[in-house]
Amino acid sequence: MTTGPPDEAPDRYPAFLDHVRRTTYVGDAEEMLGWDQQVMMPEGGTPARSKQSSALSSVQHDLLTDDRLGDWLDELEGRDLTPDRAAVVREVRREHDRAVEVPEPLVAEIAETAANALPVWERAKADDDFDAFAPTLERMVELKREYAAAIDPDRDPYAVLFEEYEPYLGLDTAERGLERLRERLVELIDEVEESDADLAEPFTGEYDPADQDVLSRAVLDELGYDWERGRLDTAPHPFSTGTQFDARVTTRYEPDDPLSGLSSTVHEFGHATYTLGLPDDHYGTPLGSHRGLSVHESQSRLWENHVGRSRAFWDYFGPAVRDHLGVDASNRDLYEAANRVCPDNRIRVDADELTYHLHIVLRFEIERDLVSGDLAVADVPAVWNEKMEEYLGVRPETDSEGCLQDIHWTNGSLGYFATYSLGSVLAAQLYDAAREERDGLDGRIREGSFDALHEWLTTNVHRHGCRYETDDLVREATGEPFGADAFLDYVDRKFGALYGL
Amino acid sequence: MTTGPPDEAPDRYPAFLDHVRRTTYVGDAEEMLGWDQQVMMPEGGTPARSKQSSALSSVQHDLLTDDRLGDWLDELEGRDLTPDRAAVVREVRREHDRAVEVPEPLVAEIAETAANALPVWERAKADDDFDAFAPTLERMVELKREYAAAIDPDRDPYAVLFEEYEPYLGLDTAERGLERLRERLVELIDEVEESDADLAEPFTGEYDPADQDVLSRAVLDELGYDWERGRLDTAPHPFSTGTQFDARVTTRYEPDDPLSGLSSTVHEFGHATYTLGLPDDHYGTPLGSHRGLSVHESQSRLWENHVGRSRAFWDYFGPAVRDHLGVDASNRDLYEAANRVCPDNRIRVDADELTYHLHIVLRFEIERDLVSGDLAVADVPAVWNEKMEEYLGVRPETDSEGCLQDIHWTNGSLGYFATYSLGSVLAAQLYDAAREERDGLDGRIREGSFDALHEWLTTNVHRHGCRYETDDLVREATGEPFGADAFLDYVDRKFGALYGL
Repeated sequence: MTTGPPDEAPDRYPAFLDHVRRTTYVGDAEEMLGWDQQVMMPEGGTPARSKQSSALSSVQHDLLTDDRLGDWLDELEGRDLTPDRAAVVREVRREHDRAVEVPEPLVAEIAETAANALPVWERAKADDDFDAFAPTLERMVELKREYAAAIDPDRDPYAVLFEEYEPYLGLDTAERGLERLRERLVELIDEVEESDADLAEPFTGEYDPADQDVLSRAVLDELGYDWERGRLDTAPHPFSTGTQFDARVTTRYEPDDPLSGLSSTVHEFGHATYTLGLPDDHYGTPLGSHRGLSVHESQSRLWENHVGRSRAFWDYFGPAVRDHLGVDASNRDLYEAANRVCPDNRIRVDADELTYHLHIVLRFEIERDLVSGDLAVADVPAVWNEKMEEYLGVRPETDSEGCLQDIHWTNGSLGYFATYSLGSVLAAQLYDAAREERDGLDGRIREGSFDALHEWLTTNVHRHGCRYETDDLVREATGEPFGADAFLDYVDRKFGALYGL
Repeated sequence: MTTGPPDEAPDRYPAFLDHVRRTTYVGDAEEMLGWDQQVMMPEGGTPARSKQSSALSSVQHDLLTDDRLGDWLDELEGRDLTPDRAAVVREVRREHDRAVEVPEPLVAEIAETAANALPVWERAKADDDFDAFAPTLERMVELKREYAAAIDPDRDPYAVLFEEYEPYLGLDTAERGLERLRERLVELIDEVEESDADLAEPFTGEYDPADQDVLSRAVLDELGYDWERGRLDTAPHPFSTGTQFDARVTTRYEPDDPLSGLSSTVHEFGHATYTLGLPDDHYGTPLGSHRGLSVHESQSRLWENHVGRSRAFWDYFGPAVRDHLGVDASNRDLYEAANRVCPDNRIRVDADELTYHLHIVLRFEIERDLVSGDLAVADVPAVWNEKMEEYLGVRPETDSEGCLQDIHWTNGSLGYFATYSLGSVLAAQLYDAAREERDGLDGRIREGSFDALHEWLTTNVHRHGCRYETDDLVREATGEPFGADAFLDYVDRKFGALYGL
């Protein structure tokens, strides 16, 4: 059968886009169920919720692997498309191809293994019993290796897994970036440890979670969180989720560490503000969706660290913190408390801005070697502890506070960790560019004015959705390729001053 | 193509049931999004939520109309099935056939119109502006008319819509039942108004919603609500939703009328307790699903009225009410207050046990005439007010407290209202049967023991799911066909004694 020349054939793009949107809507519904499960659902709801979530996953998979979608993509790729349409086709092609290559039984087995792994991991962590978790981890590594091989048997399987979370920067870039962080941060942390500086520690009491909640809400008000399109709740593991119409934040309040809750709130606000900045009219399409996890994390880290751990931030919010928490501390004390470097902290989620990345490097190296087969599961605890000692000078006393601390291997998110550090690196690049293009950004923050920063981020990052590949987005926004210089300059400058180096 | 004799052919039932379950899971996910929309979602989320809900509706529709499902049904109907399997096939056949007749775009349009209508209705109600809501109502009536015509163009469209909610009792039964209620209740209300009895009105102050919430939770504790499988929140229009693993209750607290909030809580608890009593192992199939809205409403009304408005209930809960609300009233006063007949009340959800049904009759008649085309949307406010005057002797002063008061027309639930009165009628029948079969039920309630009642209801109603058609369920449970005698005897007895008639 022959058709006319491309330009005279009927335009399949609207039908294609409807199908894409429908797929996104189902995925967003599933995300919503996830929010509810972590924030609102009574415990007994699990059996029904897992059935509902898995039904929506499989519906999504059916939609993504639909033969019609493949036909539309083939046809559209043969046409002369506008840049926006070409971007949409590029993104959908990538997801379609990945979904088509992976056999449905493998997808189901990974989901089931992950679901069964959760209570095994929780028990193993509670009992400090790595051996009880080892067979599960072994099985998950095997399955993810099969998964990578299904997508591309000829490539490094870890590179394939990494691209699930960050499709365009490439594993090489991630490796080079993490290497540079390791080299400089190990040195810098040593310098910090050798310095005589004694940073303030004003939070010595217990702080009512209700007061912390009032403070978090006050800070979100000032930062410009749009309550008409969001809400704040608590969750055991803080996260943010939603769409440009409804992007929700969760946080966690620890009575003895109010900075932890506040910084979670600001971090998740950063994620939410990216989501809220995606264009409304492209909702459901790649142009209305975030550009992968590195860019997402750059937004949360920018707000958490470059704003929320800046001297200007504490000059503005000091009075509110003293007021709501009743703490006796100057703005300078609060700034110092938010930036204390604690290499002996064994828990990633509580780590400071410097040591954090060595937690990531360690996990990245272990994961990569697990997937390549260079590291056996049984050896993970020993290697973990050695690397902790080597990078941070501290040895976990138990596997619970060592290699069992994170959920990622349980739910199959192998390849994910690096995006945390790549996000921090990108945050520094973006913040430098914003400062260059918008005069007096720090001064505005000191006055509680965040509009210029929002505007720059929306214009240069949020509104593009997936229009550009990651590296192009970075070049468009900053004029430079993705790289670690800005981040390393930033930490040298900031921690050099704080610790008198 | 020929196959072997039925009994030697492979058993298609498991594949059929998997498909049915998947359909239910998607539907339950959509219900969950509805709960979130009414209870948790920020207002700005509406455009995205309506897309998500409509996508899930249309996925459900696709699953329900799948050709394979039709083939399985054809094949299974030709076999000798166990009674349980036959019941499942009967219920799925009914839903499949209805769904096949309705075009998918119409289903999606109804879902999207409903989602978009919610904020329009809320604003119109707040502003007392019927004209702002009229176009939405007009569109919804048109869509539901199309919907009924698609299913059966030769039948009364309103009968077709009614069967969506109560598939087996028939519109004739509903009409006859409502007619009997109207005849006797208009008389009885006249007798009440002419009586000299002066029932107590102890709630003259303002009662903090926070205190009312503590009271509601205490009452739910005592009634036996399973908090591991449920939660209590507030919503503008109280409802209950969920599965046997997670059945949630919402209520609404009015500062000047604490009985209203408490009775909403108990009413929705009745719904939730039915849902929680459905068998876990049949989750996702008709045997694990409720038997239509009349039966659902019989459970809420039984707890709201036969338990929650009984003298025994107030003897037990009197101290808690005095304690939490600080009201000066005897148990007898509270019992009287919960049963005062107030024909001048314009709001259905606050109506007493007698006048309530005239609110239903009014809506039923208006709906029927809207759907038939005998009544124009523009004339609804006037007709509403005339009927209020005729049946209850009272005229709403605003449309907010008149025809804009209920959510049902907003979400497209035309045909639903009658099930409220049918549920009350059935509640009286069931409660009579429970009393006959379990000794001293009132005495147990007076002692705060609700186990025997839960057990009778679970055994005779909940655990059956959709095993029986409605009328058969009523016969199995009570030994009698569905009918209004028990309800009319009950109100004559109770209100005769209260008002000395």
